[in-house]
Amino acid sequence: MLRLSNRIDNLKPSPIREILSVIDKPGMISFAGGLPALESMPKLGLEGIPQQYLQYGESAGELELRELICADMCREGLVCTADQVLILSGSQQGIDLVAKLFIDEGSAVAVESPTYLAALQVFKLFGADFKSFNFSAKESPDAQNSLRLLYAIPTFQNPSGYCYSSEERQDLADFCESNQVPLFEDDPYRDLAFDSCCKTPVCSFMKEGTWIYQSSFSKTFVPGMRLGYMISSNNLIKPLSRLKQAADLHSSRISQWLTIALLTDKSRGRRLAQLREFYSKRRDTFAKSLDEHSADLATWQIPPGGLFFWLRLNRKIDLNEVLKKALKLNVAFMPGDHFFSNDKCDAALDSYLRLNFSYANEGDAQRGLTILANLIRNT
Amino acid sequence: MLRLSNRIDNLKPSPIREILSVIDKPGMISFAGGLPALESMPKLGLEGIPQQYLQYGESAGELELRELICADMCREGLVCTADQVLILSGSQQGIDLVAKLFIDEGSAVAVESPTYLAALQVFKLFGADFKSFNFSAKESPDAQNSLRLLYAIPTFQNPSGYCYSSEERQDLADFCESNQVPLFEDDPYRDLAFDSCCKTPVCSFMKEGTWIYQSSFSKTFVPGMRLGYMISSNNLIKPLSRLKQAADLHSSRISQWLTIALLTDKSRGRRLAQLREFYSKRRDTFAKSLDEHSADLATWQIPPGGLFFWLRLNRKIDLNEVLKKALKLNVAFMPGDHFFSNDKCDAALDSYLRLNFSYANEGDAQRGLTILANLIRNT
Repeated sequence: MLRLSNRIDNLKPSPIREILSVIDKPGMISFAGGLPALESMPKLGLEGIPQQYLQYGESAGELELRELICADMCREGLVCTADQVLILSGSQQGIDLVAKLFIDEGSAVAVESPTYLAALQVFKLFGADFKSFNFSAKESPDAQNSLRLLYAIPTFQNPSGYCYSSEERQDLADFCESNQVPLFEDDPYRDLAFDSCCKTPVCSFMKEGTWIYQSSFSKTFVPGMRLGYMISSNNLIKPLSRLKQAADLHSSRISQWLTIALLTDKSRGRRLAQLREFYSKRRDTFAKSLDEHSADLATWQIPPGGLFFWLRLNRKIDLNEVLKKALKLNVAFMPGDHFFSNDKCDAALDSYLRLNFSYANEGDAQRGLTILANLIRNT
Repeated sequence: MLRLSNRIDNLKPSPIREILSVIDKPGMISFAGGLPALESMPKLGLEGIPQQYLQYGESAGELELRELICADMCREGLVCTADQVLILSGSQQGIDLVAKLFIDEGSAVAVESPTYLAALQVFKLFGADFKSFNFSAKESPDAQNSLRLLYAIPTFQNPSGYCYSSEERQDLADFCESNQVPLFEDDPYRDLAFDSCCKTPVCSFMKEGTWIYQSSFSKTFVPGMRLGYMISSNNLIKPLSRLKQAADLHSSRISQWLTIALLTDKSRGRRLAQLREFYSKRRDTFAKSLDEHSADLATWQIPPGGLFFWLRLNRKIDLNEVLKKALKLNVAFMPGDHFFSNDKCDAALDSYLRLNFSYANEGDAQRGLTILANLIRNT
């Protein structure tokens, strides 16, 4: 009889990846994943790549890239050295490394409710016992649990789109410091700010204590090259880099070289400004379509940044059933229940859905939202 | 107080990666890592890459690449479908995924003795209790242990260079089938055969049972792009692809596109033949230098393929001390004790060292081996 590890019982498929596998179907309008718009991505070329980049490289990543990241983050308020930076094969890998570092079977892990479902998936795989909190609803983490780790997405939270105020950032940092809880701050959407709000990393509010900050190049450059990075307090540099080494030796140096080229390109600032303008316009027309079609069905906030609208329906319906029907009509979205951890019953009381506004063009978005509103209305 | 996971106590740094971090020093002659020769690597370009490749992709990897791998492996005797192929971010990732799938704290895992040290490192991280075997010394695995997994490198084993005969391959497959032990066959050196020997995958000898075969593009194409693949029996496709998804969503599509281009290049066969000729010549001159300088110090076999010579010294000395002195003289190598699991005391009785012959050019190899022989002689 085949005997697998105990943790495999905790391994659930990611509904996002399952949905992504059908959205390639011609004609599909997808609000499901966090896919950047294809037309926003730069041209890539390998002209001039030094042959040395083809060889095995350092586990931590290219020094030049780590220095560029470090300089960027110092400007954002997170003072660090290149030694503290670890290049990742996408920020999903950061979640895997941090889970390995902190989580045993039954370890208490504080997570926002709702939160990024692929983080829930990995933490669960390693045995996490979730303790939920919700800063946007003024529910702080419960300090009575002896928490191994606190995971948060303070800037344009996934899925809610919420952005912590500077007071909330200070509160979270204080909570972690005074309760000696390591903070894991996931920050992939930082550069996709459309309205003004505080984006200073919460980790930079921590005078001492243990923290990990991570971000990604997937949302503003090229997701297909799978590159992200992590910056940590000094006490975690060594175990994290060993875990990285054990996971895949190092990240693609081809991807690292392409990213260095993109980061040092003179037009980088202009490119990012154009990207923000492009997505901001998509967000605004999406909001207009939502108002037209769904004002009687749900409530939502206009997200000040990021890639998602988060809707709470006015009544409870089975959105997984709606999804099945929607997919047949070539419309994909994410039912909200997957974003709640098992200790939290918000999803049992209410129906939520997450809608990505970055991927579909404006005509498709308009058509898809019409179809979706009709399905919800008739369910 | 910082509370890390229990498994972190098992996390040792890889001595190879530690040594690799110093071999960039100008003038260093390295016999340490399994680095391919830089001059053997192709030119890379991204001309013609479809823009769609920049987007997020499928966890399993590009279908076109999986089909090419499948066709290759069918020619090698491992009949499979593209559904069974999972693209990896280098074969180190395969070790991580398989460890997650099978190993709990205290799980019995059969490994060759000696074996690939980074596999030992990862299995240990997840809590493996090693049970050693050595086919080249006619020591079969002990079927009395209830083994969760058996890990083997049957073709040009790392570090020993040993290549299983077809009878030994059949024996290993029979052992796994009759004892219902899942076989994990690691096969990165298949295409680096210099002498004729059986290379048919052991997995292809298994009529039923659970198996995982993996290989890499690092040794024959470009290690810096971090790409490998895994093929498994049907019962493991689903959990392995979910673990892959949780580890990094998917591997770099840039690397996958470059690999498809390399695999479909008309000159691929000629390129591989030239590569074998190039390394075969390096192996032969390396053997000649070893004969000249070390015949009185050690015994070894000429490896029929792969990248390493494996030497047993005629007397026991502390090779980690020799390494320290050697590094000061700009020569790097791998002391053999790191390749033995903790249940095996071969390394306590004898001194072994692993010498890579693919990376250093012939003049450097000659000089490095002279320095090394003198150090060993005078220790």
